[in-house]
Amino acid sequence: MYDVTEIRKDFPILSREVNGKPLVYLDNGASAQKPQVVIDAVTRGYAEEYANVHRGLHYLSNLATEKYEGTRGIIARFLGAKDEEEVVFTSGTTEGINLVAYGWAMPRFEPGDEIVLSVMEHHANIVPWHFLRERQGVVIKWVDVDETGALDPQKVIDAIGPKTKLVAITQLSNVLGTVVDVKTICSAARERGVAVLVDGSQGAVHMPVNVEELGCDFYAITGHKLYGPSGSGAIWIRKERMAEMQPFMGGGDMIREVHKDVVTYADPPMKFEAGTPGIVQQIGLGVALEYMMDLGMENVAAHEARIAAYAMERLAGLNWLQVQGHAPGKAAIFSFTLDGAAHAHDISTILDKKGVAVRAGHHCAGPLMDHLGVSATCRASFALYNTEAEVDTLIDALELAHELFA
Amino acid sequence: MYDVTEIRKDFPILSREVNGKPLVYLDNGASAQKPQVVIDAVTRGYAEEYANVHRGLHYLSNLATEKYEGTRGIIARFLGAKDEEEVVFTSGTTEGINLVAYGWAMPRFEPGDEIVLSVMEHHANIVPWHFLRERQGVVIKWVDVDETGALDPQKVIDAIGPKTKLVAITQLSNVLGTVVDVKTICSAARERGVAVLVDGSQGAVHMPVNVEELGCDFYAITGHKLYGPSGSGAIWIRKERMAEMQPFMGGGDMIREVHKDVVTYADPPMKFEAGTPGIVQQIGLGVALEYMMDLGMENVAAHEARIAAYAMERLAGLNWLQVQGHAPGKAAIFSFTLDGAAHAHDISTILDKKGVAVRAGHHCAGPLMDHLGVSATCRASFALYNTEAEVDTLIDALELAHELFA
Repeated sequence: MYDVTEIRKDFPILSREVNGKPLVYLDNGASAQKPQVVIDAVTRGYAEEYANVHRGLHYLSNLATEKYEGTRGIIARFLGAKDEEEVVFTSGTTEGINLVAYGWAMPRFEPGDEIVLSVMEHHANIVPWHFLRERQGVVIKWVDVDETGALDPQKVIDAIGPKTKLVAITQLSNVLGTVVDVKTICSAARERGVAVLVDGSQGAVHMPVNVEELGCDFYAITGHKLYGPSGSGAIWIRKERMAEMQPFMGGGDMIREVHKDVVTYADPPMKFEAGTPGIVQQIGLGVALEYMMDLGMENVAAHEARIAAYAMERLAGLNWLQVQGHAPGKAAIFSFTLDGAAHAHDISTILDKKGVAVRAGHHCAGPLMDHLGVSATCRASFALYNTEAEVDTLIDALELAHELFA
Repeated sequence: MYDVTEIRKDFPILSREVNGKPLVYLDNGASAQKPQVVIDAVTRGYAEEYANVHRGLHYLSNLATEKYEGTRGIIARFLGAKDEEEVVFTSGTTEGINLVAYGWAMPRFEPGDEIVLSVMEHHANIVPWHFLRERQGVVIKWVDVDETGALDPQKVIDAIGPKTKLVAITQLSNVLGTVVDVKTICSAARERGVAVLVDGSQGAVHMPVNVEELGCDFYAITGHKLYGPSGSGAIWIRKERMAEMQPFMGGGDMIREVHKDVVTYADPPMKFEAGTPGIVQQIGLGVALEYMMDLGMENVAAHEARIAAYAMERLAGLNWLQVQGHAPGKAAIFSFTLDGAAHAHDISTILDKKGVAVRAGHHCAGPLMDHLGVSATCRASFALYNTEAEVDTLIDALELAHELFA
């Protein structure tokens, strides 16, 4: 039994007020709030159990190492990975995708080689590939979504040609809420010997994920959207791909030996983890993922599907408001624009006065904004702790905004 | 009046026991403990004031942005920088130096170009340059320390030739405690048109720093050694150098516009800060630096100089123990080996039984270990909260270790 009232009590910030109103936090697509167990783990990590990891032999260092490395196994379990050694800690999806760009793609791709992207990718899954375009003549091939915001997997597969080296694709659009049939794409790409990177920044938050079943090569997650600390994250990399990669950042921990004229590298995953890591953040991420798994990702997904259906119904009742994205099975992420003079930023400011936190802007999705023909949208993005009553508050606040700008 | 007894009360972990003994934490060179104000800032950051930064317009996002960006100014003040826009947030020194390697050096250096390093650099300030050696034929020129562990700045200056593009040097050795006369090196390098990167991982912890007075081009710090959260840090980059740099990691926040066929980048420092940053960690770092500045870095340095003198005197009384590094003015960092069969790792394990946390190993300084002719040392590294009584406890524990292995 998924009791959202009880769940909300786990998140201390949800009981606060903003501008004299109860906080209605609908900016989860940008970052999620943290349950008390995560905050406690972070506090304990600093106040009682802190030391640097890996290279110490004393009690606190061993304790911190055990907890930190424990998160690797939790992430593997969360993602359905066979082997925790396929999990590389990162500071988030951005670092994870840059690791793949610098460590795997740049040394391997030739001018004219192609990367297939969907038009709804986040900048984190675009700009690293623009680097390859700018710096070494790699070609980006874009696949559009249809008028509902759905992405036909066959269109992605059809974009794969003899020069394609990589398909880099989101599992769940941060703007439209569209869920992508990644499994079908991976299967076809694998037949053609093409690697697939999945941006799981949103997907892993809202649905059960199993990287083995998906059949991808890289799957990146970001901890702060997964109810974990800022600066936490990881990327799962299939062993065969890891073996093809050169190191990305250089420093301590990722080496075997360093001499004046020679350097040798540690085995993966350490090879890709340079310097003192985000020790306490990653410990907190482990606790966050355990929290989600205790709730059950199927249950989280079912709750959010109810919220999505209700929000869509209510938003559809506002005939002066355009929701972007109506793909079947879309997640509880709603981008919208209003008729008339109201700019997305103005709307969000009015909602804020009612305690409703949404985001306004391009949502780090420039090509999608171009495709939609808008410069910005307002976005209400829901999480495992949101309620139907909060949808009602959003609607009331939108009606107020509409009146003000009408 | 520097009251170390009062200061110790600010650090909750210092009152805990380890293995039934009061914790004597002498592993500060690896990472420092955190004062309660920092822990509180982190807790408050998650429990009351959390949202993603920069791209929101709602109350919590504005609040988090204000606090996060506030740290940039605090870092500028801590480092004596003229302009906080010269401060780039990083996850630590390792990322900072890799930013310089990838963003500044790799696109500019030709085969045969030279980088001057001292033999006592940390791997974070070696491996990124090995990448340039391995990948594009850059030559590393090494400068040795003398038999006391001192580095003659003239030897560094003499190593600068017509093909030298960069001097990359630590301000304070994490193994020997040697303080380097960075200012003299920077002055000579500047005359020759050669940039200087200073690894401030240790220096900024133990002495007042003013980057304008030093005259360097890059100064990297790591927050977790500065009594701040793990995963926090920054690099100061002189404006002229920033203008020469290409972006390092690609993603959100570091762009101006992203379209299908074109990308333009934000102005520095944002240009070098991709994706959701370590929001709460960096807020915590700001609090940590304020804490240090409230104590006064001159006072911290004076306290640590007293500890260093006392520790050196006591260690010198153990004629079966060899301290590595006796450079004049060295910091309170003592690496040592023992006569006979005792391996550094065994010693540290015995010290741990007495509650004394030290580190054993190569301390991420392979070339220095080669130079010293040892594979590992034990290292006791002191911080602003350590006491002479803790030196005594260390000595007692060492005497026990000596007896056990004698």
